[in-house]
This record gives sequence, structure tokens and C-alpha cells, in this order.
Amino acid sequence: MKILLIGATGKLGAAVHQTLAARGHQLITVGRTSGDLRHDIADPAGTAALYAAAGPVDAVVSAAGDTPFKPVAEIAPADYEAAFRGKVLSQIELVRQGVGHVAERGSFTLISGVLADEPIPTGSAASMANGAIEAFVRAAAIEIAPQRVNAVSPTVFTESLDDYGSYFPGMPSVDLARVTEAYVRSVEGAQTGQVYAVR
Amino acid sequence: MKILLIGATGKLGAAVHQTLAARGHQLITVGRTSGDLRHDIADPAGTAALYAAAGPVDAVVSAAGDTPFKPVAEIAPADYEAAFRGKVLSQIELVRQGVGHVAERGSFTLISGVLADEPIPTGSAASMANGAIEAFVRAAAIEIAPQRVNAVSPTVFTESLDDYGSYFPGMPSVDLARVTEAYVRSVEGAQTGQVYAVR
Repeated sequence: MKILLIGATGKLGAAVHQTLAARGHQLITVGRTSGDLRHDIADPAGTAALYAAAGPVDAVVSAAGDTPFKPVAEIAPADYEAAFRGKVLSQIELVRQGVGHVAERGSFTLISGVLADEPIPTGSAASMANGAIEAFVRAAAIEIAPQRVNAVSPTVFTESLDDYGSYFPGMPSVDLARVTEAYVRSVEGAQTGQVYAVR
Repeated sequence: MKILLIGATGKLGAAVHQTLAARGHQLITVGRTSGDLRHDIADPAGTAALYAAAGPVDAVVSAAGDTPFKPVAEIAPADYEAAFRGKVLSQIELVRQGVGHVAERGSFTLISGVLADEPIPTGSAASMANGAIEAFVRAAAIEIAPQRVNAVSPTVFTESLDDYGSYFPGMPSVDLARVTEAYVRSVEGAQTGQVYAVR
């Protein structure tokens, strides 16, 4: 399949790239500062240009979404708005605008995350964004069929424990290889409206 | 308890008002065009003025939140932004700004809805907003303790079947009296971070 991969240069995106390429798919990589195409996911208005440049694809895979992390006592409305634009509206626009560019039975795979279910201090904007994405996926699925849309919701990556492990005390990590399996399942499988929790 | 009730004039808000008042609570009602205090929930910037006018309270109860309903094929980014501001950020601001105005062991009760879990066509913005609120509630709860925050997530009201029943084919409705029970549970109980699904 021809697959548009958003966030190709991040730790997760690079692993998804490797896994999907190894399975024979043709990847069009998209990054903020590198990749086949440039797109800043925090600027959903650029999505139309992205799709115009990419041409028709069989699947869209997202591994990108930024949210601020701040305590509730310090966070500002602008931080929640940044999380909404950077992780929610950005991915919604990939679906909404992508419907006309993706194959009739093509798919969208979005990224949410464990904080939707298991909060951590400073994570309220991320939790909000992840919960929004997961509910959107369930809702959009029933309207865009036979096109499909799923979310992958991983916990902290084993490969990221050095950086983020202290935020997830006692919570099992998952290897990136297990997270990329969920992307394969979404892209090559037939389900829709699913949240694949990788925990 | 002294309770600030947002959305007091809606069908749900009026029922919550009646139930809480019958249990001996003192209600400060807030509505867009009527009530003890005026506040447009779609304008979260007005939340500071609302709290200044209300003074200290024991609980904040929200029964207000508007989202557009449009097919994915027709909906615009501005509609998702309206849903975010009108139901998500509006209620987040009630909590974030309310922390300093609510009693030490006081509570916030927000409104989400069945569409977080059970989508209907045209409901993707509402689903997104409800999922965001429910995840936010879980996240904020661990930071604001001993203050508490919960969400009530009702399905269609029996009393609204004439207006909205056709959107929920085969889905059981709930009487408003059962929804108001969940508000009582949140306000008078001791749990936090809960989503009370009334289905």
C-alpha cells in the first residue's frame, strides 16, 4: 500500500516507518523539518497542501501530536487550546480532509495514549486530547465507512524510559515493536472505530 | 451546601436545580439569559467574573455545554473548535479557575454524554467533546484533591424523546430523575475522577 506517515522522524514514527516498509508498503514520510513532505501538525490549516502534494494514498498513519505538560494550578487556557490544536484538531483534519484522498477502503490510524485512561500529574491537557481523539475515532468510523479509522493508544515506550520513566512509576512499559504491531493491525486489518490499547 | 449551578434553565439544569434544592442545598443559578448570575458558557473568558460574583461555594455543578451536529462530510474545523470552546474548555475553566473559590473538600460536577462511547451520525464533534471531558475529569481529580471532580454522562432523556428520540434508535432513554441522582452522588458523595454513566 501507499501510506502517508505523519510524524515520521519521531521515535515512534521511525519505528512505524521501519515496520511498515519491511512489510512491503510504500511510505511517504511527513515531518516538521524533514521527510518526503513537510508539515507542521500544529498547523491544521496546512493539511490541504499536504494532501495535494501527497496525491492519492491507501492509508494515513499518524504518529505525531504535541501537548503541553503543566500542573492544573499553573496551566492556562492557551495550553489546553494548544493541546487541542496540536493533537486533536490536527488529527481530525487528517481524517476530515483525507476522506477525498484516501482509497475507498483505505484507513486512518491516529495516535492517542495511555493518559486518556491512566492520568499522571501535569498530564491533564494530554489526557483531554487523548480522550477527545478516542471518542472522535469511534464517531467518525460510523460515518466514513467503508473507509476506516482507528487509534493506537500506547503507554510509555520501553525505549523512552530513560527520558520519561519517572512520570510512570510502577506502570509497565511497552516495546516500540509492540506499538508498531498495532499500526499494522489498523492498516492491514479490517476493523474500524477501534482504540488499540498497547499496555 | 452552597452550590453554583451552571445551565440552570435548561431541561437538565432545571431538574438538577429542583433535586438539589429539595435536598436542602442553596443554589446560585447561572444562565445565559436568566438566573441569579449571567454567564455564557461559550465564553470561558467570563468565568473569572462569574466566580467573583458568586463568592465562595461548596460545589460547582454544570449542566451546560453546546456542540454543533453535522456530518463529517460537511463539518468544518470551526465546528470542532466551537465544540471545544463550548463544552470542553468552558467546563475545564470552571474547574481550573474554580479551585480557588470552592471549599477545601468541595466538588465540581461536569456534564459529558453517551456519545463519548456510543456514536451517532452527525455527532463527531459532540463525541470528541465528551471524550475530552471524561479524560480531563480523571486527570484533574488526581491534582486537585482533596477537592473532587466527576462527570455525569447521560444518554438521551425520556423527557427529550419527542425532540431527539429519532437520533437514538433502539437506545434506552433515562428519566431526568435518574440523571439528577448522579449529580447528587457526585456532590454529596466522596468519590472523585468518576464518570457516572446514566444509561
